[in-house]
Amino acid sequence: MYGTVYLVGAGPGDPELLTVKANRLLDDADVVLHDALASDEIVASADAAEKLDVGKRSGGERTTQEEINCLMVRKAKEGKDVVRLKGGDPTVFGRGGEEAQHLAAAGVDFEFVPGITSAVAAPGVAGIPVTHRDHASSLTVVTGHEDPTKDESALNWDALAANVQAGGTLVVLMGVGRLPDNVAALEDGGLPEGTPVAMVEKATRDAEFAVTGTIDSIVSRAEEVGIEPPAVTVVGDVVSVREQVVECLQETPAARFATAADAAVSERGVER
Amino acid sequence: MYGTVYLVGAGPGDPELLTVKANRLLDDADVVLHDALASDEIVASADAAEKLDVGKRSGGERTTQEEINCLMVRKAKEGKDVVRLKGGDPTVFGRGGEEAQHLAAAGVDFEFVPGITSAVAAPGVAGIPVTHRDHASSLTVVTGHEDPTKDESALNWDALAANVQAGGTLVVLMGVGRLPDNVAALEDGGLPEGTPVAMVEKATRDAEFAVTGTIDSIVSRAEEVGIEPPAVTVVGDVVSVREQVVECLQETPAARFATAADAAVSERGVER
Repeated sequence: MYGTVYLVGAGPGDPELLTVKANRLLDDADVVLHDALASDEIVASADAAEKLDVGKRSGGERTTQEEINCLMVRKAKEGKDVVRLKGGDPTVFGRGGEEAQHLAAAGVDFEFVPGITSAVAAPGVAGIPVTHRDHASSLTVVTGHEDPTKDESALNWDALAANVQAGGTLVVLMGVGRLPDNVAALEDGGLPEGTPVAMVEKATRDAEFAVTGTIDSIVSRAEEVGIEPPAVTVVGDVVSVREQVVECLQETPAARFATAADAAVSERGVER
Repeated sequence: MYGTVYLVGAGPGDPELLTVKANRLLDDADVVLHDALASDEIVASADAAEKLDVGKRSGGERTTQEEINCLMVRKAKEGKDVVRLKGGDPTVFGRGGEEAQHLAAAGVDFEFVPGITSAVAAPGVAGIPVTHRDHASSLTVVTGHEDPTKDESALNWDALAANVQAGGTLVVLMGVGRLPDNVAALEDGGLPEGTPVAMVEKATRDAEFAVTGTIDSIVSRAEEVGIEPPAVTVVGDVVSVREQVVECLQETPAARFATAADAAVSERGVER
């Protein structure tokens, strides 16, 4: 009897943002194959399982996709139940689809177990709703680690800029390294000066941090405050909601995202 | 001392897809204000709290947004901790942003507590990854309950059609009622015949059900199998992944989404 491979989303980082189902599967797993993006605390909670780090960090491929595919199939064929744990949701830029196809072709049962994607959660905990009746009627999510000047870039940055102008929110995952390129591509695509932009770093983790600016200022703002990966970039009018609510709540015991951001700022010795 | 209002996502329906944090907040809440989209089982788990149903069903407004806003503020000012429980994620077409602004303006602390959005989870559990390196480099999420022929429609269906053609996935939430209008708007926008489309109904609940087709066949397919709200519509090449994995796994103990869909089909006495 083969085991089952569960392609499980670990959420944005906070162990409390794991689902009840993911917790149960981690408790019961024989093997856990995890990403660099899944929190250490979450991985450690699977105390009975064999734990294998197959994370891919940006720049240096540590375990190839082929090796991960082989490992999942081999362990399942040994009769073991495998949790393949991924940061966020397994189907949102997580290669979960490719892994599922590989498992299906090998005759190994699998199940997608949804997790909370940082594309929604990171803006949310920073006080930015990704949609809003007055500000945004659509949400588009892309990754920012591709070179936008490459001919073979799969993304049409002109169309992405047009979406924002038409009242959509754009969320760019993994966009710290190529921020200047991506901002330039959006500006070339016609995104007007003054369009609000926020970056939210390490959302839902202790060092979470947010910075706001505009499409013309965000590159220098991010540099000033030292934004580091992993961070989520939000482009569109919804960013203004954070500014409104932080303004209103500054005299009351502040909402968590505000105090956490302020604490991070003071630790880094910079002003927002 | 005022209480805090937690704007909490209840996820797509399965109580196991609630987060650990949402469970804790429900256990500790004094008051729970819930939507029609949040499962009865999840609401019932908050056994100590006063529970108020403020859901808005499509067609008939039951509690106005103003009434909900007033209730949240009044309860918090009585010193009560309030869970405002919403289906999916509170910031994805959930009016969470508006409620947060109202709370902030009233000086009441709030926190967004992310939940799993059906926009990602419903396709996922049906075997459709919303992004895929070979099939989709972006994900766009909209709601389908607006009339696309209205002049004041906030959505640009031509741009949405162009996104899909450029290799994006389009997910339409709440799109059962206006499916024929929205499909026509996408066809008018240039979406070619044969573009794959899936509809996933009541994802992660016992009666979950999926149907696949193409942009030119989905209206009649949905009618044949009797798709009912709530359902999520997925447009784009990623739909083909479901067909591949279901095909591969049909001889093995089938993955959950396949058996569940088959069971739902046979209950309804129709063929997929």
